[in-house]
Amino acid sequence: MASPVSEAVGVADLETVRELARQLRVDSIRSSTSAGSGHPTSSMSAADLLAVLVARHLRYDWDNPGDPANDHLIFSKGHASPLLYAIYKAVGVVTDEELMTGYRRFGQRLQGHPTPILPWVDVATGSLGQGLPDAVGVGLAGKYLDKSPYRVWVLCGDSEMAEGSMWEAFDKASYYQLSNLIAVVDVNRLGQRGETELGWNLDAYAARVRAFGWKTIEVDGHDVDAIDAAYTEADGFDGPVAIIARTVKGDGFSEIADKDGWHGKPLPADMAARAIAELGGERDLRVRGPVPAASLPRPAPHARPAVTLPTWEVGAKVATRKAYGQALAAVGARGDVVALDAEVSNSTHAEDFKAAHPDRFFEIFIAEQQMVAAAVGLSVRGYVPFASTFAAFLSRAYDFIRMAAISQADIRLSGSHAGVEIGADGPSQMALEDLAMMRAVDGSTVLYPSDATSAAALVAAMADLPGISYLRTTRGAYPVLYGPDEPFAPGGSKVLRRSDTDVVTLVGAGITLHEALAAADALAAEGVSARVIDLYSVKPVDKATLVEAANATAGRIVVAEDHWPEGGLGGAVLEALGDGDVPLRLRHLAVRELPGSGTAEELLDFAGISARHIADAARGLLG
Amino acid sequence: MASPVSEAVGVADLETVRELARQLRVDSIRSSTSAGSGHPTSSMSAADLLAVLVARHLRYDWDNPGDPANDHLIFSKGHASPLLYAIYKAVGVVTDEELMTGYRRFGQRLQGHPTPILPWVDVATGSLGQGLPDAVGVGLAGKYLDKSPYRVWVLCGDSEMAEGSMWEAFDKASYYQLSNLIAVVDVNRLGQRGETELGWNLDAYAARVRAFGWKTIEVDGHDVDAIDAAYTEADGFDGPVAIIARTVKGDGFSEIADKDGWHGKPLPADMAARAIAELGGERDLRVRGPVPAASLPRPAPHARPAVTLPTWEVGAKVATRKAYGQALAAVGARGDVVALDAEVSNSTHAEDFKAAHPDRFFEIFIAEQQMVAAAVGLSVRGYVPFASTFAAFLSRAYDFIRMAAISQADIRLSGSHAGVEIGADGPSQMALEDLAMMRAVDGSTVLYPSDATSAAALVAAMADLPGISYLRTTRGAYPVLYGPDEPFAPGGSKVLRRSDTDVVTLVGAGITLHEALAAADALAAEGVSARVIDLYSVKPVDKATLVEAANATAGRIVVAEDHWPEGGLGGAVLEALGDGDVPLRLRHLAVRELPGSGTAEELLDFAGISARHIADAARGLLG
Repeated sequence: MASPVSEAVGVADLETVRELARQLRVDSIRSSTSAGSGHPTSSMSAADLLAVLVARHLRYDWDNPGDPANDHLIFSKGHASPLLYAIYKAVGVVTDEELMTGYRRFGQRLQGHPTPILPWVDVATGSLGQGLPDAVGVGLAGKYLDKSPYRVWVLCGDSEMAEGSMWEAFDKASYYQLSNLIAVVDVNRLGQRGETELGWNLDAYAARVRAFGWKTIEVDGHDVDAIDAAYTEADGFDGPVAIIARTVKGDGFSEIADKDGWHGKPLPADMAARAIAELGGERDLRVRGPVPAASLPRPAPHARPAVTLPTWEVGAKVATRKAYGQALAAVGARGDVVALDAEVSNSTHAEDFKAAHPDRFFEIFIAEQQMVAAAVGLSVRGYVPFASTFAAFLSRAYDFIRMAAISQADIRLSGSHAGVEIGADGPSQMALEDLAMMRAVDGSTVLYPSDATSAAALVAAMADLPGISYLRTTRGAYPVLYGPDEPFAPGGSKVLRRSDTDVVTLVGAGITLHEALAAADALAAEGVSARVIDLYSVKPVDKATLVEAANATAGRIVVAEDHWPEGGLGGAVLEALGDGDVPLRLRHLAVRELPGSGTAEELLDFAGISARHIADAARGLLG
Repeated sequence: MASPVSEAVGVADLETVRELARQLRVDSIRSSTSAGSGHPTSSMSAADLLAVLVARHLRYDWDNPGDPANDHLIFSKGHASPLLYAIYKAVGVVTDEELMTGYRRFGQRLQGHPTPILPWVDVATGSLGQGLPDAVGVGLAGKYLDKSPYRVWVLCGDSEMAEGSMWEAFDKASYYQLSNLIAVVDVNRLGQRGETELGWNLDAYAARVRAFGWKTIEVDGHDVDAIDAAYTEADGFDGPVAIIARTVKGDGFSEIADKDGWHGKPLPADMAARAIAELGGERDLRVRGPVPAASLPRPAPHARPAVTLPTWEVGAKVATRKAYGQALAAVGARGDVVALDAEVSNSTHAEDFKAAHPDRFFEIFIAEQQMVAAAVGLSVRGYVPFASTFAAFLSRAYDFIRMAAISQADIRLSGSHAGVEIGADGPSQMALEDLAMMRAVDGSTVLYPSDATSAAALVAAMADLPGISYLRTTRGAYPVLYGPDEPFAPGGSKVLRRSDTDVVTLVGAGITLHEALAAADALAAEGVSARVIDLYSVKPVDKATLVEAANATAGRIVVAEDHWPEGGLGGAVLEALGDGDVPLRLRHLAVRELPGSGTAEELLDFAGISARHIADAARGLLG
């Protein structure tokens, strides 16, 4: 029976599905036993749920994982990778040999937890409570941008329902009425070290999920007919649906079923043999479920017209956060650019994008984890997300940023209100660790512009950057330093003061660059010539320019940053120059004591990073 | 009327309370207008709720904030600080002059968001969604440890209900049946930049909170009689209670009440004057509510017997995570030591503490934000919490750790399964950013032991450390390097190989120390004498020993770490040696490419941090 959106629905009858489920259990046991590690029992509990899904409901062309009309399948409980990989074997995209020799082995793609090294995996999972939030992002893309009927199916564990991020996802999915999102919750009762909080209290789970605006269907997760009916029922609902399934951990092997102490443990060979025997032996069933109808519209490639950035007069006072918003609105001329906000768009100035492109702006409210996850999900569908909030509050989403890097997602983050410069609001609102946090992300780009021109140019550059990129912006308005044609690229820097008689180098970025310029003026009045470097690219850092400066000024370098001393601008300079190839006598000015409220000027001075302190440090190096 | 637990209940009648509420509004306007910043409208919405609470229900001896029988009052919506400070004036602990000249000013204690610089503030708030989780920790202390009848009252904003951490708190409060916890949700409908997700849909909030196991009471948040009745009703319930209050942002001043665009804005002087007139003018009412009964038992000081740490034979293979668990169980001889787990206690070995001290072990399940917040809350009551999970998953709680430092909380964190060493589980489970993250926390101590002896000694040291301390542990078992009497202190290091002929220094910690020792052996076989430093204290770092080694080995130093290159061990060494006082030629080996699955040996070699690479780097420095 063909439907308007899929072909070959019902390729497998339910008896075949039952056979498939047994095979998925057997292969989950075989692969993990062969690897000597893995999670067979957490795979076995969900085997029936996934067998029905893959054979009869998931619309997916396994020969063309790039088909934009494909459904999405996300294992939020990523530790059930043996089940996922057993499915890949069953649909014929992974061989039995790879399953048995590649799982969890060095250099192989069937890793302990799924990552997008595999073409059928959208996002890396394994840090619990992230798959569903990621799926919300894919769902937003499908409903609001692609306007395509693909669905997003998410296998969730019961233990991860304790993560607050899951409830951010439940909340946002209902707020955005994501009728394309189906969560399958595998309630196998047992966590890593004992019973979960709610055990088999399916009603409690369902009540919570329903209160968050979802339709819920409770089901016996080993009753293939009931599962099939639940998926069918879920499909037509005008909003997100959760299938809350009562399952048995280790189901299918009586020696361990529903027994504590078997989380994350492969079966010893003898037990594996008995389990496989109890499951009816090895099988080599091949199944394929429905595929998206060829007649379905596929989203067209996005327009990428040339972007005209806003410009400012040199000397005009403009906050870099304001430049971020204006530049982002301009970059939004590209149809693939999307903006997300955590309910502070009037502070970050993401509101400028919203005004220009309301259809590509998603208000995530105060849920930073979900905001980053939604960006990841949108990137799965090829969008170019920019997500912004106060820089301090991106620390809320650090695990999501870390996992986004493992997902090889291309997402852009902007954090406003950096450092003590914000003034009266006090330390809870001051990002003083964000440079350290964002630099320590695999493959990240970390940018910290000092003026509106560079901020705008870097926003434009970020749109084309791979991986995780981060732009740190400042609350206050400071003079524009660069003319509109000045080029800026990640990995670069600008030398703003330079002469043949330079005896010391002053390095700043953001607010401290302005302080460094003032310090250089003070030093110049004393006849001391200082080189001043705008180190707007904190990662990658412009080593060549730093090396040249170190050589030119006998290693005398003052770095000033509005950040804790660890891991930020000073760290970047030290890493670039610490190999002994150049002289190095670094003085590092950073925030070393907990600040309170005050004006920006008072707090920069309190922290010892104002012009006065920079000039003093330079004098100290020369004295 | 005196009750068994309080004295002087009902000191103020409801008409006085209404007057008080007007004064709180007036003073919120006055202080924020005087400061030129702040959140008067978010204070005005909650003025009636707080006036009733402070005058008639909160049991608090304002002259003795250290009384352990006092109730606790936490502003989870910390931006309503004008209201909190207006209360302090009304109860007579802050003068009107301080309110008018100190609020949000440099060097003053009435900061933009409350911090424990004030003796009546338990925890710093201002990052939304943290006050309620913190309160759960205080509630756990009250119910299970202090066994004292004090209550914990929390003022929550409606916007912060979007934070997942709130739902972790709702979940845990009901799991632990915290009958001492009352959340007051100020549903003023308006967020920072427009209407909240749920607006004035009180039923939706209540349904969610009820589904999470709380009793809910919906109330008109400006009806003083109804509020009073709600608090009375809440008091007797055998579990946590949420008062869901419909309020008006800016209530009391018709020009801005329920109007968008007034979030976080002080009133201009002329509007402030009109508002104060509309509210009946300035007042100087003094009120005091009930105080804890003198007859109430106060918790006794905790026993602090001498701790006998476990010991191991030198050369025995023991995982540092195992040593953590055993040492923690031993340190638990002190009655104030408490352990928290995020459902991985059999991996972190926190289960050893649970076995020895089940009454002081709290299972938080997979909710790392709540785990850290509970630790903060327990520290408020003087307990010595140790919270542990996989090191990678502490990134989930980074904002909570950041705020814990601002709260000046003394908490101990342990992260197991650090780095690529974990092997087959893959990158989602590998902490490769935790050293950078934890170093960039104000006043933090970061420890990374290489063997069981040092791990145990450092656990014992952590019990007496102020601030945020962090212990990084390793999955695998490696040889014990130190005898049981070897002392270890934060800020120290150990020189394991040293001679007068050392030509290169090898610095490692954790797993890489073992690799450095093997590299030193390989170099020794070639006639090259290498100094080897166990840099177990990553922050503070033992600069003196590093300086001595740099001088002794002509600046030739190889640092190897199982961490991204940014902000970790290499950063700590560079910060110590980058000032030019000693020669420095550093080679920095760190994880520079996304790892996959494999054995520990394969992955250490892949990452370029194994003995072979360390020896090669040393040869390179010498060649």
